[in-house]
Amino acid sequence: MYGITFDPESRLSQYRQLVEQLRGKITGGSLPGGTKLASTRELAERLGVARGIVLEAVDQLKMEGYLDTVHGSGTFVRPGLVWDSGIQQGVVPPAAAATARSEPLSFAPGMPDMELFPRRAWLSCYHDAVEYANLDDLGYNRPSGHWSLRVAIAGHLHEIKGIRTGPERIVVTAGASQALAMLASIFGRPRVVMEDPQAPFIRRIFDGLGCDIAYVPVDDEGIREDLIPAGGADLVYVTPTHQFPVGGTLSAERRVALLGKARDIGAWVIEDDFDSEFRYDRKPVTPLQVMAPERVVYVGTFSKTVSPALRIGFMVVPPGIQARVKTLKRRWDLWNEGFQQKAMALFIERGHLARHLARAHRAYRRKNAFLRELVAARLSPAWRVTGATTGMHLVIRRSGPDGTPADAAPVIAALAERNIEAESVLDYCHAHPGFADSLLVAFGNRTETELERLVAEIAVFEKKGG
Amino acid sequence: MYGITFDPESRLSQYRQLVEQLRGKITGGSLPGGTKLASTRELAERLGVARGIVLEAVDQLKMEGYLDTVHGSGTFVRPGLVWDSGIQQGVVPPAAAATARSEPLSFAPGMPDMELFPRRAWLSCYHDAVEYANLDDLGYNRPSGHWSLRVAIAGHLHEIKGIRTGPERIVVTAGASQALAMLASIFGRPRVVMEDPQAPFIRRIFDGLGCDIAYVPVDDEGIREDLIPAGGADLVYVTPTHQFPVGGTLSAERRVALLGKARDIGAWVIEDDFDSEFRYDRKPVTPLQVMAPERVVYVGTFSKTVSPALRIGFMVVPPGIQARVKTLKRRWDLWNEGFQQKAMALFIERGHLARHLARAHRAYRRKNAFLRELVAARLSPAWRVTGATTGMHLVIRRSGPDGTPADAAPVIAALAERNIEAESVLDYCHAHPGFADSLLVAFGNRTETELERLVAEIAVFEKKGG
Repeated sequence: MYGITFDPESRLSQYRQLVEQLRGKITGGSLPGGTKLASTRELAERLGVARGIVLEAVDQLKMEGYLDTVHGSGTFVRPGLVWDSGIQQGVVPPAAAATARSEPLSFAPGMPDMELFPRRAWLSCYHDAVEYANLDDLGYNRPSGHWSLRVAIAGHLHEIKGIRTGPERIVVTAGASQALAMLASIFGRPRVVMEDPQAPFIRRIFDGLGCDIAYVPVDDEGIREDLIPAGGADLVYVTPTHQFPVGGTLSAERRVALLGKARDIGAWVIEDDFDSEFRYDRKPVTPLQVMAPERVVYVGTFSKTVSPALRIGFMVVPPGIQARVKTLKRRWDLWNEGFQQKAMALFIERGHLARHLARAHRAYRRKNAFLRELVAARLSPAWRVTGATTGMHLVIRRSGPDGTPADAAPVIAALAERNIEAESVLDYCHAHPGFADSLLVAFGNRTETELERLVAEIAVFEKKGG
Repeated sequence: MYGITFDPESRLSQYRQLVEQLRGKITGGSLPGGTKLASTRELAERLGVARGIVLEAVDQLKMEGYLDTVHGSGTFVRPGLVWDSGIQQGVVPPAAAATARSEPLSFAPGMPDMELFPRRAWLSCYHDAVEYANLDDLGYNRPSGHWSLRVAIAGHLHEIKGIRTGPERIVVTAGASQALAMLASIFGRPRVVMEDPQAPFIRRIFDGLGCDIAYVPVDDEGIREDLIPAGGADLVYVTPTHQFPVGGTLSAERRVALLGKARDIGAWVIEDDFDSEFRYDRKPVTPLQVMAPERVVYVGTFSKTVSPALRIGFMVVPPGIQARVKTLKRRWDLWNEGFQQKAMALFIERGHLARHLARAHRAYRRKNAFLRELVAARLSPAWRVTGATTGMHLVIRRSGPDGTPADAAPVIAALAERNIEAESVLDYCHAHPGFADSLLVAFGNRTETELERLVAEIAVFEKKGG
């Protein structure tokens, strides 16, 4: 009747199917305005469903305004409800069948070793965060983040990095990326000074939000702060502890010069401290923020140290832009996540973070040393490792027989043929091409066997006289 | 020596205290450039710490560029490192002592009943999400949200609301607010049509992001779509199922007219469906999105249905703006949270959401009926409840002896004196003041005793001839 059919295999109830089809026929025009509907008894019989279902469907459509009942006359389709949606509804294309191919072995940077994730400790903290949540914890969390987490982060930053700050200066964000996107947005379309080379996803955040970017070259010791244009800027984005991806650590002298330059051009400095926990030859380098807490925005994340899946980052905001940052966070997300933030506070308070960092530090240090030894033992002196002994990736530079830099591109191409992905720092350069002799090798999420495979393939390339 | 002292009560190690103080004295100028440092042996003796600690601190400061060792001569402070940070470091004001006062009993809307949060079921889903997470789950999650959650939301929307969509159309956001902030941002500074009255926090999102807002009045049946200005707009933001806060449900006829108007002025329609799960007199009203999936952005959230602390919302995005929405989500947050999203997928797949919704529905329906009966039984006919029988709040209207609307302000003032917070719909009006006779009463997170107290106080006010 009316072309209505029921699909016995559908997850939808008969009620839902009936309502959907009747509504579709009314807005589609095949049950035009003024049409008198059959009685619910007749409908139930002809469609083979319980009368209660028909009654419920007709009631619902009356309430929604699709049908009218005129007492003594019957139920009619209301006029004026034809609506051409313009597209075929409900046609959802099936997911394209994944074509089978073996995934390349990738040495691209950015991923921590997910095997290290401390499931037991994390689950126990999350359990307690939810189990003992009070009514405040269960409700809307403060826009700047759970207070207990901000207190815990302030303590952690003081103990591990020497940063002195209070929870009121800390804003918890959806990873470090949201912190950067917010800083790129509070000044309208700001002029931003960035290091070159630079992580493409960072560049895309600033670029995509309409920033006017000036790229400043780096050398083996970090940003060439003397080359920052004098013309004024709103933001200077730097990785002073471990320039990404080249690997330099900015010296105290250049830190002072950088801060002086930023002051002179009126810029706020964004310090992205993505891996200073993992320094292997020394204690972690002290952040720039400690020297100039009124000018430096310190950006940190638990993505590399605990898990990217948590999406918990944070920034320590100087008083001068605190109100702007907090207002924007409220505009963008209004409230903040609660349970995982409370769990992270417990994770820090109970010492799990410190224990986990120690364990991860040992694991990454071992891999770092293993890779350095492999390069020294298996490759000719034409290959040497550069950059600070820190983090989850390193840079291998290639030189020719005369000691001058040699192009790494042929090695990368040869590796690609063996289904191994590696990049050159050159791929990260934007305005100042360079480092063409470099091979970027992320070891954090690779096994020793995989690192051996990489170096063995480079050795094969060398032997062939590549 | 050098004015260095150790605080035995500090959480900082002696190493960290020594590095911090030496660095501070160098950048502060009291250890000027060129100063020859005492030998590590002497320093250790005079300061009363192990020589290993002094060696480590000096090594660290050499590596960071604060000290230089000249072979055969000693260790010197590097010149040019004096930096005036301009503020007193580390002075963190203690939190102001909270002044003791009893919190008012608030009937302001927006909060679900946190007591209903299904801790056991949620914790078991979260446990499994993390315990059985594969390496992909532990890494960076897709910018648009965990695929399994988007599949689960698509199925849920189909079963409960009749929306036909696929996971590729769904973007998981930090609550409904982030969805609105994103929509307000993808058009630059868009012209937005909004209902008036309107939730202030929603208005602030659009207003704060620089939108040009046209306010359109509502009546008891929702937005007066005939009053939408003809001049063109980018967005029309509506609550068609349950106008917030007045309570009307847009009829089929006005839905068709609204969609026609939106098409004519070239606007995308944002449908904020914040509580349609909780309809008590009928099945949930079908969303507007079903009529025009190519023009309507459907925005939903788990804040009201499961918990605000999760910060999980979503939108179903029409193909025409899908690319823009997904690009902005990537620019703002880069990646998306993973564990709680996977847990929510399990929560839906395992039927917990359906069971929880049924339980919450019973609880809210009972409170809604209880409050309606209280008003009918304890107050004079001057007070009547209006709006759809749905959601977690309702509107009580006051009339005078002649049946015309009577000002609710004196009641609200009398309640305030009894430490009870209630608002009028008038407080939510922006450009079109009205509904001065209304009292907004959120019952979702209030007990029956608290509702009785409210109505009893209104009765007292009436008896006094207020």
